[in-house]
Amino acid sequence: MNDIASSAVAQVADIARYMQNVGWAARTASRVVARADTKAKNDALSHAASALRGNTARLIEANRRDVEAARAAAHDDAFVDRLTLTERGIEAMARGLEEIVALPDPVGEISELRFRPSGIQVGMMRVPLGVVAIVYESRPNVTADAAGLCLKSGNATILRGGSEAIESNRAIAQCIREGLRKSGLPEQAVQLIDTTDRAAVGHLLTDDAHVDVIVPRGGKSLIERVAREARVPVLKHLDGVCHVFIDADADIDIAVRIADNAKTQRYSTCNTMETLLVHASIAPRVLPPIAAIYEAKAVEMRGDSRAREIAPSIKSATENDWYAEYLAAIVAIRIVDSLDSAIDHIARYGSQHTDAIVTENYANAMRFVREVDSSSVMVNASTRLADGYEYGLGAEIGISTNKLHARGPVGLEGLTSRKWIVLGNGQVRT
Amino acid sequence: MNDIASSAVAQVADIARYMQNVGWAARTASRVVARADTKAKNDALSHAASALRGNTARLIEANRRDVEAARAAAHDDAFVDRLTLTERGIEAMARGLEEIVALPDPVGEISELRFRPSGIQVGMMRVPLGVVAIVYESRPNVTADAAGLCLKSGNATILRGGSEAIESNRAIAQCIREGLRKSGLPEQAVQLIDTTDRAAVGHLLTDDAHVDVIVPRGGKSLIERVAREARVPVLKHLDGVCHVFIDADADIDIAVRIADNAKTQRYSTCNTMETLLVHASIAPRVLPPIAAIYEAKAVEMRGDSRAREIAPSIKSATENDWYAEYLAAIVAIRIVDSLDSAIDHIARYGSQHTDAIVTENYANAMRFVREVDSSSVMVNASTRLADGYEYGLGAEIGISTNKLHARGPVGLEGLTSRKWIVLGNGQVRT
Repeated sequence: MNDIASSAVAQVADIARYMQNVGWAARTASRVVARADTKAKNDALSHAASALRGNTARLIEANRRDVEAARAAAHDDAFVDRLTLTERGIEAMARGLEEIVALPDPVGEISELRFRPSGIQVGMMRVPLGVVAIVYESRPNVTADAAGLCLKSGNATILRGGSEAIESNRAIAQCIREGLRKSGLPEQAVQLIDTTDRAAVGHLLTDDAHVDVIVPRGGKSLIERVAREARVPVLKHLDGVCHVFIDADADIDIAVRIADNAKTQRYSTCNTMETLLVHASIAPRVLPPIAAIYEAKAVEMRGDSRAREIAPSIKSATENDWYAEYLAAIVAIRIVDSLDSAIDHIARYGSQHTDAIVTENYANAMRFVREVDSSSVMVNASTRLADGYEYGLGAEIGISTNKLHARGPVGLEGLTSRKWIVLGNGQVRT
Repeated sequence: MNDIASSAVAQVADIARYMQNVGWAARTASRVVARADTKAKNDALSHAASALRGNTARLIEANRRDVEAARAAAHDDAFVDRLTLTERGIEAMARGLEEIVALPDPVGEISELRFRPSGIQVGMMRVPLGVVAIVYESRPNVTADAAGLCLKSGNATILRGGSEAIESNRAIAQCIREGLRKSGLPEQAVQLIDTTDRAAVGHLLTDDAHVDVIVPRGGKSLIERVAREARVPVLKHLDGVCHVFIDADADIDIAVRIADNAKTQRYSTCNTMETLLVHASIAPRVLPPIAAIYEAKAVEMRGDSRAREIAPSIKSATENDWYAEYLAAIVAIRIVDSLDSAIDHIARYGSQHTDAIVTENYANAMRFVREVDSSSVMVNASTRLADGYEYGLGAEIGISTNKLHARGPVGLEGLTSRKWIVLGNGQVRT
């Protein structure tokens, strides 16, 4: 454990000063990792992966203490499940870091370097954001994933995990720091806030001198708190009210397969479809087989009156259902009379996360892709595919519903920005 | 004048409701201009340019009323100068809009569309941000420039100009709306806040339901207020404390030319050099001719003791000088012993705006470009070249010192973001 972190638990009385020190150390380290070469960063990640594997017993013991405390505090099974580290989970964390090693280094990439009439050559260079703060709930695996992505993209990281995972996070962070040390990079490039004092988060959110961006990972209440209080830019993911629109010209088999998968492959994820829109002209053919699948899988259906006429097992929807992010085995179903109505519904009730059209009609597919303003817009594919791995990013720090900077799954590139570079041989402004 | 705007002056008593109406109308119009084709947007800009030329007399008359009021309110000459519209200024606004017509339309550009192992094709499409609010001081030309750039990039705009320019801005906005009307686009795509009530700005800054980004254009106090109060993302430009570093291996002629131009070509701009860093080994040869130029141009020099030994006309600098954005005929001069010292000085005192190295040394040039974290980093070129026109953006809405989203000169591309598009033929998540 580094000096700052180990002195922290004692220093909790002066949280402002502790956070100031953490921020300053991160800013200093960020300048070193920003210019670190690819090999040093990859070595650090590989060493960290080895340290995780080599310390499996210690990690599981630390995690056992967290789990016992969480059980004693009467946290529910789902909570304890997310908190628990198994041997397999530790191996997955290590492999996750090695997958990041295999990704291309985004830092320093120069693009669009073009001569201008003045004789200067102007282009853009991809550079790290600087210091990235991650505020997350009690999921220890986030500690390794987030630190790995930030390091590879040349950023320093300040990690603030859920207090119930503090023992596990400390043990994981120690492995990552071992990796940094062995590769000659500063340990302060990855810092864990080593206190459960809630005031620490408040400091992070307002410390624009030391923090360049905050990434909250967790439930809606965490993200809303961060968005409300932050003076630092937030890369945030709010609701995922995702739609599938089955157009008049849809292929029935594809429509049924996507409506099934987008809703039922997993209920709790942000890219799960919450509302199914069906064109009136195809509804009599496509809705009955879909409703049969939902019934078989015990998915509660809430629809408008026209949907209920076609499939009587559908219950009655209220206005609130169109806004709902159920994250559960419930689906809203609405019949629409045109592509325009579908696009209007999505603009009004959607959350600009991920929306899909099922159609064989070229013009409708193109209009949907252009006019639906969501971070991912799909043709003939399940919304569940909106994901860093599926998109080829390798890993993701989160899914952004921001409109500025990165939208949708955010990987290494979303943790960087581009600066202008100008190469001249004496040019001046005239 | 459109209905909302003309009813505004009367409705000023209910500013919240007025702003709500403006925001809602902008959001609605933004969906139409987002999908407008290039021809419609270009036609609107061309018609607006014609309307500006055709209404020159009316514009000058409206501006005369603003100028008289400003003089009566004892605003200084520089203020009145920025406020004043001449025939030539109106022609320049019209030509500015025509130059935007000639720029490529960034909206809808698809890039990196690649097949993934699952069979989906994943890429990115450039899309407008939505509603852009511009808060600016009493410079009427900004009304046309900003509206033009936002329209071409498919955004709706809410313009809030300085209250001293209200008559001029009304007249200009009317010409732009005429252009929109003639091309069949909604007039609400460009709205001028038609009240001088300062509370209007407060509403804009917090209306994240209707405003996607705020661009403040003006002095530091305006930008700081916006950054402090905004709940909406801000594309902001803070200080421009720009540096030129003359390396040991600099070409003397180039160094003198750039040190002269970067400081003296114009004093009041954000990309003007404020601090000159000179490597100790070249200082005896390069500093005397530079000091002679500054003396001849009555530029006050403030330097450290080593600089003063070489050029006695340099006054003594204090710590504050290294932080200063003079925007005046003053320059700070410091002797440094290495490239590292120069980079450290820039990291500590700079504002991450624009910094340049003068060198013939390849390794030093590459290190400076990589390690200086500013929105523009230059080799052998004057900082004054950090500019949308010089970079080939055609025009700029401002220069961003943000680290997220756009850095440096922001043109059409900075007023857009990219969403993911997925083209499949029935793929689902397994």
